[in-house]
Amino acid sequence: MTRVVVVGGDAAGMSAASAAKRARPDLEVIAFERGEYTSYSACGIPYWVAGDVANWSDLIARSPEEHRRRGVDVRLRTEVVGIDPAAGTVTAREPDGSETTVGWDHLVLATGAEPGKLTVPGHDAAGVLSVQRIPDGQAILDAVASGAEQAVVVGAGYIGIEMAEALLRQGLAVTVLDRGAQPMGTLDEDLGVHVRAAMEGEGIAVRTGVEVEAFETTPTGAGGRRVTGVVTGDGTFAADLVVCGLGARPAVGLARDAGLPIGDAGGLRTDDRQRVTGDHPAAGHIWAGGDCVEVHDRIADRYVTVALGTHANRHGRVIGANLAGRDARFPGVIGTAVTKICALEIGRTGLGEQAAADAGFDAVAATVESTTRAGYMPEAGPIRVKLIAERSSGRILGGQIVGRNEGAAKRIDVIATAVWCGLSADELADVDLSYAPPFSPLWDPVTLAAREVAARLG
Amino acid sequence: MTRVVVVGGDAAGMSAASAAKRARPDLEVIAFERGEYTSYSACGIPYWVAGDVANWSDLIARSPEEHRRRGVDVRLRTEVVGIDPAAGTVTAREPDGSETTVGWDHLVLATGAEPGKLTVPGHDAAGVLSVQRIPDGQAILDAVASGAEQAVVVGAGYIGIEMAEALLRQGLAVTVLDRGAQPMGTLDEDLGVHVRAAMEGEGIAVRTGVEVEAFETTPTGAGGRRVTGVVTGDGTFAADLVVCGLGARPAVGLARDAGLPIGDAGGLRTDDRQRVTGDHPAAGHIWAGGDCVEVHDRIADRYVTVALGTHANRHGRVIGANLAGRDARFPGVIGTAVTKICALEIGRTGLGEQAAADAGFDAVAATVESTTRAGYMPEAGPIRVKLIAERSSGRILGGQIVGRNEGAAKRIDVIATAVWCGLSADELADVDLSYAPPFSPLWDPVTLAAREVAARLG
Repeated sequence: MTRVVVVGGDAAGMSAASAAKRARPDLEVIAFERGEYTSYSACGIPYWVAGDVANWSDLIARSPEEHRRRGVDVRLRTEVVGIDPAAGTVTAREPDGSETTVGWDHLVLATGAEPGKLTVPGHDAAGVLSVQRIPDGQAILDAVASGAEQAVVVGAGYIGIEMAEALLRQGLAVTVLDRGAQPMGTLDEDLGVHVRAAMEGEGIAVRTGVEVEAFETTPTGAGGRRVTGVVTGDGTFAADLVVCGLGARPAVGLARDAGLPIGDAGGLRTDDRQRVTGDHPAAGHIWAGGDCVEVHDRIADRYVTVALGTHANRHGRVIGANLAGRDARFPGVIGTAVTKICALEIGRTGLGEQAAADAGFDAVAATVESTTRAGYMPEAGPIRVKLIAERSSGRILGGQIVGRNEGAAKRIDVIATAVWCGLSADELADVDLSYAPPFSPLWDPVTLAAREVAARLG
Repeated sequence: MTRVVVVGGDAAGMSAASAAKRARPDLEVIAFERGEYTSYSACGIPYWVAGDVANWSDLIARSPEEHRRRGVDVRLRTEVVGIDPAAGTVTAREPDGSETTVGWDHLVLATGAEPGKLTVPGHDAAGVLSVQRIPDGQAILDAVASGAEQAVVVGAGYIGIEMAEALLRQGLAVTVLDRGAQPMGTLDEDLGVHVRAAMEGEGIAVRTGVEVEAFETTPTGAGGRRVTGVVTGDGTFAADLVVCGLGARPAVGLARDAGLPIGDAGGLRTDDRQRVTGDHPAAGHIWAGGDCVEVHDRIADRYVTVALGTHANRHGRVIGANLAGRDARFPGVIGTAVTKICALEIGRTGLGEQAAADAGFDAVAATVESTTRAGYMPEAGPIRVKLIAERSSGRILGGQIVGRNEGAAKRIDVIATAVWCGLSADELADVDLSYAPPFSPLWDPVTLAAREVAARLG
């Protein structure tokens, strides 16, 4: 019997396990997960903390029991501590501390990412938390329930602003700190400034261009220390709860220890079938997906790391299909993402103006201001759409949106589809997009932006 | 001085006038409009009647005075009653009843459409109204203010369902009648059935497969008659207000009388620069746009009539640019449209399953049911996405959406962009669409639908 061993029981790993087992019931699939959960939505944690989602169990897409019923041998609280590609084995530490060695015909690495950590003094004090796994969300909720009043969020990216909203809605005073010039460093600064204004408008204090130097702490009765403030070059911010949203780095320690090659962006490099490339003795038998791998950026034509559930699940499906003997390929990414801070929605895809220049493009950008609905409709909110196009070809390289009220940010998918297809600004301006007063002004803001950047292209 | 005469002062005509004058201030531009308004949003009338929009004046994009300040000679209440292509003149009836003949170097026909009318007995009784111009909306509001309680809407297309919602929100009992099997004949019936359910769920009575045979009327004091009921083969429906939403036919009487050729779909046929084609003595000098022309359906490769403000405005821009000496082209349509009935949003683009078969395609369709947000989010509403693809190539031919809560229908624009670009179902399934719990399930419903239809393509 062919045995597949999966390391990591979240999106990529369990998608691979499920897809492989569904297509090839004769495969033996063992999945090792060091934690207690499988297939949960990490992206949902901020909404659980905010109170939108009542129970952590709602975030579980598929429980270990459900996976087992489908024939996947899920082993929880069992951490893989070593990989031997030459022997085709992994060594796992069982819940009781003993170690077992298990052989595999195919190995799927889905070890995820480690949340970025500040190693400044006090970083391990109680009350300094990150947001990656379900226990992290529970710890934050526990801090809130214990009466935390002043939260500092370190990092104003996706997780940072989502947690800022969540904590604000829980009644805490919230300060957000970021090293960049504006919140949401994946947006160009001219759009990031509107994110900042929206955050400040909601009562969130935003401090940018600041570095965290240390955490102030006070002794706890139990002999430990608890955070009381965040020390920066811009002063000290009082805090009884600190949430770090500092992005994530591919968790590749195991792979590196096993001699598997790590790419320039810090993740495992795979081919488009998700096989780990490079010179190693199990070539063609080691697969990897999810936050631990690098993905191909189709526009910049380089490898990047993007910790996102959609990519992880796509990787898993691709790996599972290939394990089942099909020929499935991951097509790469263009960096599409959405989020919101209270009523301000944010979307982005492709290359920003600065990223386009960094990638060597001679690019032209234009931003339009419009409304999400016909201007005379009561729900019409302001929306800004920025498009970036290649000067020589007119091809849309990317787009960014900030706007108020529902329906602003999801328009990024139209731009993403245009970027994916290589449409020029003129062509995008021509597309027959939908119009009715409750949905759009006569000219959809995306059409207006395409027309504006086309005009600048001359 | 080169003189441009525009016939019709709404979207297409005034866009052409504005665009031409802006680019070529030396042009003399005269616009004849038989009514009292210019450049109004007919699409907004249902929302004015519903109470979303306080004043009709909010629906005016640009008033006659604004056009005049931009140098366009707008002549209101002045109806063009004759065109002489050989002489290069129009004859206009002035507000005082006198007639004037005006010469032109270029003529722009933007005569719009006539609302479909029932010519059954009683059709001209008071209380039988249509929805096309601002006075129509005022007449409906007047009827509501006069205490109308029972409305019958004839026709369950865009206007019909929008007016049904408007009248329901005004507190009337509403019955909608339609000849088709389901409301929204531009959707396939398997999606139309959900529109029907939503309408019925809101308390709207829906009767399909019925023909209106007559209007019951009662004498009014003034010697006229007022509607009291709608007689159909399925019984008589009491009504003190009847609103007809029966679509529109190109208003081409003037053009036909002038010997200009009319296309098979009943509109003026133009080339892609919006010049009226065919054998006529002013070839190259007569332009037409808006609801009075036929447009090229890019997918079915045939000419159709689509009364929609976006196309009219695009035509106007194209005509104006060409009059100013540029080379602008209208790229054709794919039939993208959105609307809603209360909380149910509806979108469609390209060819439906039946239309694809009618157009000679061997097509495959698939419908998925999903949610507008992550299933665990409180605002998640049900959404159905149907995609139609060509069997041989996998190319997406069209899509249809019905779904609840904001953000369902506008997803049609992603499908429209895919149809426009000729993406296959597999390719659409690969596109890097955005995901975050408040915006989408992990797999956007469009991605799911693309995957499902791709699977059926084999």
